Amino acid sequence: MSAAPEFQPVLDGIVAALSELRGTEGQVASYIPALARIDARHFGMALVTADGQEAQAGDGAMPFSIQSISKVFTLTLAMQHLGEALWERIGREPSGSAFNSLVQLEFEQGRPRNPFINAGAIAVADRLVSLFGGGAKAELLALMTALAGEPVAFDEEVAASEAATGFRNLALANFMKSFGKLDNPVEQVLDLYFHQCALRMSCLQLARAAAYLSRDGHHPLWAGRAVCTERQTRRINALMLTCGTYDAAGEFAYRIGLPCKSGVGGGIVAVVPDRLTLAVWAPALDATGNSALGRQALEMFVARTGLSVF
Amino acid sequence: MSAAPEFQPVLDGIVAALSELRGTEGQVASYIPALARIDARHFGMALVTADGQEAQAGDGAMPFSIQSISKVFTLTLAMQHLGEALWERIGREPSGSAFNSLVQLEFEQGRPRNPFINAGAIAVADRLVSLFGGGAKAELLALMTALAGEPVAFDEEVAASEAATGFRNLALANFMKSFGKLDNPVEQVLDLYFHQCALRMSCLQLARAAAYLSRDGHHPLWAGRAVCTERQTRRINALMLTCGTYDAAGEFAYRIGLPCKSGVGGGIVAVVPDRLTLAVWAPALDATGNSALGRQALEMFVARTGLSVF
Amino acid sequence: MSAAPEFQPVLDGIVAALSELRGTEGQVASYIPALARIDARHFGMALVTADGQEAQAGDGAMPFSIQSISKVFTLTLAMQHLGEALWERIGREPSGSAFNSLVQLEFEQGRPRNPFINAGAIAVADRLVSLFGGGAKAELLALMTALAGEPVAFDEEVAASEAATGFRNLALANFMKSFGKLDNPVEQVLDLYFHQCALRMSCLQLARAAAYLSRDGHHPLWAGRAVCTERQTRRINALMLTCGTYDAAGEFAYRIGLPCKSGVGGGIVAVVPDRLTLAVWAPALDATGNSALGRQALEMFVARTGLSVF
Amino acid sequence: MSAAPEFQPVLDGIVAALSELRGTEGQVASYIPALARIDARHFGMALVTADGQEAQAGDGAMPFSIQSISKVFTLTLAMQHLGEALWERIGREPSGSAFNSLVQLEFEQGRPRNPFINAGAIAVADRLVSLFGGGAKAELLALMTALAGEPVAFDEEVAASEAATGFRNLALANFMKSFGKLDNPVEQVLDLYFHQCALRMSCLQLARAAAYLSRDGHHPLWAGRAVCTERQTRRINALMLTCGTYDAAGEFAYRIGLPCKSGVGGGIVAVVPDRLTLAVWAPALDATGNSALGRQALEMFVARTGLSVF
Repeated sequence: MSAAPEFQPVLDGIVAALSELRGTEGQVASYIPALARIDARHFGMALVTADGQEAQAGDGAMPFSIQSISKVFTLTLAMQHLGEALWERIGREPSGSAFNSLVQLEFEQGRPRNPFINAGAIAVADRLVSLFGGGAKAELLALMTALAGEPVAFDEEVAASEAATGFRNLALANFMKSFGKLDNPVEQVLDLYFHQCALRMSCLQLARAAAYLSRDGHHPLWAGRAVCTERQTRRINALMLTCGTYDAAGEFAYRIGLPCKSGVGGGIVAVVPDRLTLAVWAPALDATGNSALGRQALEMFVARTGLSVF
Repeated sequence: MSAAPEFQPVLDGIVAALSELRGTEGQVASYIPALARIDARHFGMALVTADGQEAQAGDGAMPFSIQSISKVFTLTLAMQHLGEALWERIGREPSGSAFNSLVQLEFEQGRPRNPFINAGAIAVADRLVSLFGGGAKAELLALMTALAGEPVAFDEEVAASEAATGFRNLALANFMKSFGKLDNPVEQVLDLYFHQCALRMSCLQLARAAAYLSRDGHHPLWAGRAVCTERQTRRINALMLTCGTYDAAGEFAYRIGLPCKSGVGGGIVAVVPDRLTLAVWAPALDATGNSALGRQALEMFVARTGLSVF
Repeated sequence: MSAAPEFQPVLDGIVAALSELRGTEGQVASYIPALARIDARHFGMALVTADGQEAQAGDGAMPFSIQSISKVFTLTLAMQHLGEALWERIGREPSGSAFNSLVQLEFEQGRPRNPFINAGAIAVADRLVSLFGGGAKAELLALMTALAGEPVAFDEEVAASEAATGFRNLALANFMKSFGKLDNPVEQVLDLYFHQCALRMSCLQLARAAAYLSRDGHHPLWAGRAVCTERQTRRINALMLTCGTYDAAGEFAYRIGLPCKSGVGGGIVAVVPDRLTLAVWAPALDATGNSALGRQALEMFVARTGLSVF
Repeated sequence: MSAAPEFQPVLDGIVAALSELRGTEGQVASYIPALARIDARHFGMALVTADGQEAQAGDGAMPFSIQSISKVFTLTLAMQHLGEALWERIGREPSGSAFNSLVQLEFEQGRPRNPFINAGAIAVADRLVSLFGGGAKAELLALMTALAGEPVAFDEEVAASEAATGFRNLALANFMKSFGKLDNPVEQVLDLYFHQCALRMSCLQLARAAAYLSRDGHHPLWAGRAVCTERQTRRINALMLTCGTYDAAGEFAYRIGLPCKSGVGGGIVAVVPDRLTLAVWAPALDATGNSALGRQALEMFVARTGLSVF
């Protein structure tokens, strides 16, 4: 890949403009020590254009815990292998507040509303365990490495901490299991889920990994075959726009107007269809669980470039 | 306005292609007689481009009951006068299933999740009654007439039927009132709400009325002033994309990829930012309460023109 | 009826013992002015034994707003005329917290859990309107007068205030109506409901009126016929024990161990099967909506007499 | 203990009268093989009077899986050691339907409504693990043996099956853990819970074990000390009456009018305060999860003896 002369100054400008706000708003996720001790003042951005140019700024090359951003990639992996059959177990509609996720899970008999709420991502993990058995984690690492163009690894300390404190995820998984909606042992499904959350990647790697979402399923590094079909790509982008940022999807759609997926590690990936993918990282989270500075950076990017779907 | 040579053949082609499917799928809304007796075989389309060209096909000039599509316009009217203060009473996030709307209303102390669920639209109507008192209906008619470029009227028979059978809306309104979240008498608020649902407009009038949503708030017929600001326009479009089509917003985002607002009269309005607005009408509804043939027509339009946000 | 030499000293003793606590705990119901201006220091008790002796102490002969205690009598009236058919529309199980009443009403398609939650009492009122039409209020007054042995009347000011502020009851009634579970107009059903809540009776009148509940359905003043059957009496007593005191039924069962029904006017009626009925009134309510001093008085009565079902 | 000449004919009569109905109504619990293969035609009764007489009939001496009846005894054990402090973690009010238990658990931040719903019994088990650590199961066995007057044992096959299929209980326990409402590891808490459910006892042993509930806390076999205080006994009886039989507590209160606790093994224990304790076993369950024939037997017992609290 080559440099992106058009966008490098944009990223540099945003990082410079927002630099003094680093760590001043929001809270770093504190439910596990490995996340809690991250310096709230990290701030990085990166992008990859549809024609293969790259740019990054600030801590854009520093790896962090991608957490829920991984849901985009496990969904992609499951869609590659299962196609439409995946949706027998998982819905594709927004879920309202976190409060409702459990009520809805009861009301809808253990079928999660979409693959980006935790229950839905656990259901996707169950499908991957059915597909790959004990090799599911290796399969995911292989995909991530192929998409990032560099070796990607799990942070085993983070994965172990997630497992040790993940009671609500255990509740969700056992609840789905009680409805007969998970085929594999809860422990095995959650082992994959906790590991996917513990993937360590940089903004640049994330922007590169997600590049197929701005190119109708074709990844710049994958010569021969598509990552997924054009229709599947639209499906993922539509889900990101309507369900990708917890209970702030409406606000993201308004302020940023791009398909986004965030994680409690402070990362956010955004897609400008046909143009580029963008990743931002700032660890402190706002009340909705999204990176506070990351949202501002994305909003500034859209304002400066005019690249919004609206 | 002038003809739209580029799009007239597209509309003609879609109406012709789908003509034999008219009335074969879904059910006409039957909860009030005035809607139930509509011929399920009506099918019309219309569009208005950002530079003022118009096209229509099939029953595109025949008026019908716009029902929930009116929520876009009452929201616009409230935003014009109240700005950000409107959001003290109403949220802006998707609400999940209909089931949850009531649970959420309880959980969130009578504050509706967004202005496009019934509770939210009733809250908007309450704001309009506070603004205009007994003149609220006249104010709405004046706006619709100014936007449509032609006189628009309420169907009083439909409004009366809505009032006579609207027990769930009465329940929602009284429930919000019990939380102190409606300032005006329930009867007066619902009188406005039932009338807005009973507005009769054609696809062409709807496409024209919504034209400001594709033009950053500027309406082609309004020389001097904007209908609303560019930011407000983005807000409305974002809400339409994430919340505009009942419990099918995710599916609409995927298959159509445009801000849409539907009504149980069988109409749907869609926005292609910076390009055009589009309206379709086919009375038979699918299980999600959206026009079955209307969805197909919009999907075909996007496929044939490539005009989707993704 | 004659004096009750055994129990008169018990009532006198309790009223004396608790006299200095009058009005020191809890809050008088304040949602309507007519209730809010009641002196919190009122305190009365009365009882009627199964063999027709009567006793009263303190303000035991002063009338007050019986509010939800009326649900016992409208239920009785409906059971007299409908028998088991009543239960097609209403359940007979505890409902958990107030929060759930609405969720459950949704989940159970508009069928209230029991006749002592508001939704259930409204459903009972609907049955009475079906039975007696415009004469339902007169029929209820006739029953209350026959049971109390003295003329009983509605407090029209209270009834009007209830109607003017009863938004949650309007919500419940319209919600049930939307499920097709009310046969009559909401206004007519609630007119009866708001009037039954506005019945004015003294402790002595209430204890006398409820006397059939301690006598297998036979009222001491009704020579010939039973008020209801022995089985129906057990049904009412069982409902009072499990559902009669809002979200404190478990606590009442433990501390008092008698079938009780309370109202937000500060009254409580209790039944000692085969022995006596007892009424207490003290307007200040605890956090569960039950008379704070009334609970203590009942607990003291049970402790001093040993009359508890456990 | 001696024979009970007054009640032996009553039990014999009921068993004879209902004998031909054995296994004709309801379904044996089938969620684990060890329960599913029980012969649905078993039917036994036993009672122990407050003055130490015993009677049994049919299969009254045959051990079965007591399941949720064990909740009475773990509650007793916890109350012995913790007194009122127990209620900081657990409520004492009815919970409405099973559906709501989960919603309520969310709404009430992980605090179960009462100790007889599964969540509540798991919270009690957590308290016992805090008290006795690894010795909790032995402590429970020692209590049961002391109460039954004979050695009582766990059915390890049943306990293992419960553990292997108890996904909903795992969900509940992890959900409470996520709210910080369980102090011990979920596995350890559920190990105790699954074992208590797997206690094997006969009707006669159960009636004897529960005898303290009819004697103000004093057990006929325990010379020196009380099992629990008189107030605690009333608490347990009140909880059994209002919450002891799943979503049929209102119906049991009406038809039987006694504190009862049932289990999905088909057993029910009932208490006549100051008179006797009674146990019945018939494996086939009705739609509410209570023994179908057991309910009829208890109803017949109350009708024939007049021993009901109402």
